[in-house]
Amino acid sequence: MRMYDIIKRKRDGAELTNEEINFFVRGYVKDEIPSYQISALLMAIYFKGMTERETLALTLAIRDSGERADMSDIKGIRADKHSTGGVGDKTSLVVAPIVASLGVKVAKMSGRGLGHTGGTIDKLEAISGFKVDPDMRTFKEIVNKVGLAIVGQSDSLAPADKLLYALRDVTATVDSMPLIVSSIMGKKLAADDDVIVLDVKTGDGAFMKTLDDSRKLAQMCVDIGKKAGKKTSALITDMSSPLGYAIGNSLEVIEAIDALKGNGPSDLTELSLALAVEILFLCGMGDREQCKALTENALRSGKALESFAAMVEAQGGDKRQIYDTSLFPRAKYGKSVRAQHDGYITSVNAEDCGMASVLLGAGRSVVGESIDLAAGIVLKAKVGDLVHKGDEIATLYSNRNDFAAAENKLLCATLIGDKPRKKSLIIERVV
Amino acid sequence: MRMYDIIKRKRDGAELTNEEINFFVRGYVKDEIPSYQISALLMAIYFKGMTERETLALTLAIRDSGERADMSDIKGIRADKHSTGGVGDKTSLVVAPIVASLGVKVAKMSGRGLGHTGGTIDKLEAISGFKVDPDMRTFKEIVNKVGLAIVGQSDSLAPADKLLYALRDVTATVDSMPLIVSSIMGKKLAADDDVIVLDVKTGDGAFMKTLDDSRKLAQMCVDIGKKAGKKTSALITDMSSPLGYAIGNSLEVIEAIDALKGNGPSDLTELSLALAVEILFLCGMGDREQCKALTENALRSGKALESFAAMVEAQGGDKRQIYDTSLFPRAKYGKSVRAQHDGYITSVNAEDCGMASVLLGAGRSVVGESIDLAAGIVLKAKVGDLVHKGDEIATLYSNRNDFAAAENKLLCATLIGDKPRKKSLIIERVV
Repeated sequence: MRMYDIIKRKRDGAELTNEEINFFVRGYVKDEIPSYQISALLMAIYFKGMTERETLALTLAIRDSGERADMSDIKGIRADKHSTGGVGDKTSLVVAPIVASLGVKVAKMSGRGLGHTGGTIDKLEAISGFKVDPDMRTFKEIVNKVGLAIVGQSDSLAPADKLLYALRDVTATVDSMPLIVSSIMGKKLAADDDVIVLDVKTGDGAFMKTLDDSRKLAQMCVDIGKKAGKKTSALITDMSSPLGYAIGNSLEVIEAIDALKGNGPSDLTELSLALAVEILFLCGMGDREQCKALTENALRSGKALESFAAMVEAQGGDKRQIYDTSLFPRAKYGKSVRAQHDGYITSVNAEDCGMASVLLGAGRSVVGESIDLAAGIVLKAKVGDLVHKGDEIATLYSNRNDFAAAENKLLCATLIGDKPRKKSLIIERVV
Repeated sequence: MRMYDIIKRKRDGAELTNEEINFFVRGYVKDEIPSYQISALLMAIYFKGMTERETLALTLAIRDSGERADMSDIKGIRADKHSTGGVGDKTSLVVAPIVASLGVKVAKMSGRGLGHTGGTIDKLEAISGFKVDPDMRTFKEIVNKVGLAIVGQSDSLAPADKLLYALRDVTATVDSMPLIVSSIMGKKLAADDDVIVLDVKTGDGAFMKTLDDSRKLAQMCVDIGKKAGKKTSALITDMSSPLGYAIGNSLEVIEAIDALKGNGPSDLTELSLALAVEILFLCGMGDREQCKALTENALRSGKALESFAAMVEAQGGDKRQIYDTSLFPRAKYGKSVRAQHDGYITSVNAEDCGMASVLLGAGRSVVGESIDLAAGIVLKAKVGDLVHKGDEIATLYSNRNDFAAAENKLLCATLIGDKPRKKSLIIERVV
C-alpha cells in the first residue's frame, strides 16, 4: 500500500478502504508517513468528503491510535458529556456532579481552552491545590470512591487526533465534517465510556455557525457512537450568546457552584439539567420525566454540590472554596462597561465575548500560553433584557489595568435594539 | 502575510495576489514555510485551479526563485526548443544543430530521463568523453564559438521548480494545468532565451493524453511566454507511438545523426524540420517558406551535421563517433520480437515502449539510478506497416540477457489489425 495512491484515490473521489484509512493513521502516528502527504490527503478529504463508512473507519483508527483507557475496574455505568466548545460553558462542572450524585460514574478527561473558548481543566485549576494530572490508578480510585473525577487528557490517548488536529489547524482543513466528527468521536471513544451525550453548539460563538451544519454534525456523531457500541445522543443548543453571565476561569467555577446550590443563571441550570436528563435516560434510570425529577432533586437536596466538593477534596483541591466562593482568586482591577443607549439587548456575540476575555488574560491565543485565572467578564444584562443608557451591562476583571481593547470588543459584541428578542436555548435532541 | 490564509483563500476559490504567490514560493525555497503547508496549497490549487494572472505570477516566481542565467555575453538571438516529454524523442539533437548552423544561438539546458521518457543529457553521454556540466563561462564560450551547447540543468536555476515538482510527485498534485504550465515555463524563462518553441506531445505516450488538454497546455504556455516578453509558439504533435525507430540513449543519438545526414526516419525528420522552421520564423529569418528552405538546405549541405560535430568536440566528446556510428557503445545481447499474426500495425503504444526500454536498462524508475547507455529498442515496423506472422517487428538490446518482460511489454504495446491506419504527426500550431 502506498500513501501516494491513497491521496490520488481520494483526490479522484474514490471511497477509501478501511485498510487504507488504518494505514495512513498508523503510519502518521509512527512517523512513517510524512506530514506533507497527510496534509495533501486532508485537503483532498476537505473537497471530496468521506462516506459514513469511511468516517467510522477514521474514527476507529483514531480511537485505536494509542493506548485505550482500561476502565474495567470502575464499577457501574460510566457516562460522559462532551461539548463542541462554547463561551461561558461551565455545564460539565454542573452536569457531572448531578449524575455522579445519582450513581452514574463520571471519569472525565477534559482539555484546556484555546482561542475564544475556555477549557474545563483550566477552570478547575482556579481551585487552590486541585490536581488535574493524577496517575491512572489514582484517577480510577477517585471515580470509584466519590463517583467522579475530571483530569487532563493523557498524551497516550488517541494521539492521532492530536497530530491530525495540529496539522489541520495550520493547513486550513479544520472545517471538514468527517474530519470534525472523527476527531470528536475518536477521542471520546478512546475514553471508553458506556454513555456519551454530546452538546453540539450552534450559532455565532460555536464551531458550527449554522443549524444545518450542527444537525449534520450531531447526527453523524450520534450514529458513529452507536455503531461503535455506545449509547449516544446529542442536544443542539444555542451558542449565539454566552452561557450564563460569567466568562473566565475562576468566575465560571463560582457560577457553576451557584448553579449546584440552586442559585445559578436560568440558562445554565436549564441546559445542565437537560444534559443530565439525557445521561440518566441513556443509563436506563427511568423515563424522561423520572430522570428530570431525579436531576432536580439532586440540586435541591444539595447532593450534587456534595459530589462536587467530594471530587475537589479527592483531587487535592481546597474544599472550603466550594462553600465560600470569596476564597477564589480575584482580579486586582475591575471596570464597568455601560450601555451607550436605551433599548433591548438583541444580541451578545459569544465569539467576541470570548475574544474579549482572552484580551483580559483569561484565555490563550496559542497552545501553552499561561493564563490569568481571575480574569474575565461578568455580564450584567443578557439577550432580551431592557437597558438604559449608562446602565452597567458587564464588569471586566483583570490583573492588568488595561481594559480599552476588551471594553471595545464587548461593546461591539452587544447590540441594543427597539424590540425584545429571545432565542430558545435547547434547539433539538438528536438520537 | 500568513501561509494559513493563503491556503484558506485558495481553498475557498479566491484568486491569490501576486504578493501571496511570491510569498509562498520564496518562503518554500528559503525553507521558511513547511512542506505540509505547501502540499495542502497544491491540493487546493488542484481543485480550484488558477487564473491566467495567478499562473503567470507563479511562473515568474519560479523563474525568479534562483539565479537567473546571465546570457548577455552571448552574441545574437538565443532560441530554445522544449518538449513536454516523449518516447524516442531525439529532436533536440537534430533541431539545435540545424538552427545553430543557420546562425541562431542555442544555449540549451536539458534534463535526464525518468520513467518512460528519456532525457537529452543521458543520450549525449553515449558519446565518449562528452561533458554535460561545464562551468557557466565555458558553456557560454562554446555557444559563442560553435553556435550551440547542451548542458545539464544547474541546481541554482529556478530551484522552486525542483522543490515544487518533487512535492507534487509524492502528493498526487502533478496533474494540474496551472502547476504544469508554471513548472515548464518557470524553468524555461529562467534560461532567458529570446525565442521559445514548445513541442507539446499528445496521446497515450504523452503527459497530456487528450488533444483538448494538450491544446490548453500549449496555449497557456505560449500566452505566458509572450507575457514574459519572449517570442513563443508551440506545435502539438502526436505521441501515441514513439518518434523514429530507436528508443534508448546510444540508439537514439545514432538515429539523430542519421537524420542530420539526411537518412533519418521520415517522422523524426519531419518534426525536426517543423520545429526548426518555428524557431527560424520567430527569429525573423524570413517567411515560413523561406525558413523551410533554409532548414532543408542545412541538412542537405551537411552544415547541421558539422554544427553537431563542432559541439561534440567543444564539449570534450569523441567527434569520430559522429562520422562512424559503429563506435557507439553496443549492447552485449540482442533479441528479435516477431509479429504474432498477419496484418497492419494499428498502434505501437509509446508509453509501453518506454517502459519496455526501462526494463532493458535504458531508463530509470527513480531519480539517480544508473542506466545502460547501450540498451534499448529498435522498432522494425511502425503504425501503418503491413506485417506477416513471424516478421521481426523490433530488436531489443541490453547488457543483461533477460528479455522476457520487455518482449512481453512490447508485444502488448503493438496492435495488429485488418486495416491500415495512420495518424498525422504534427497536429496543429499554437501561437
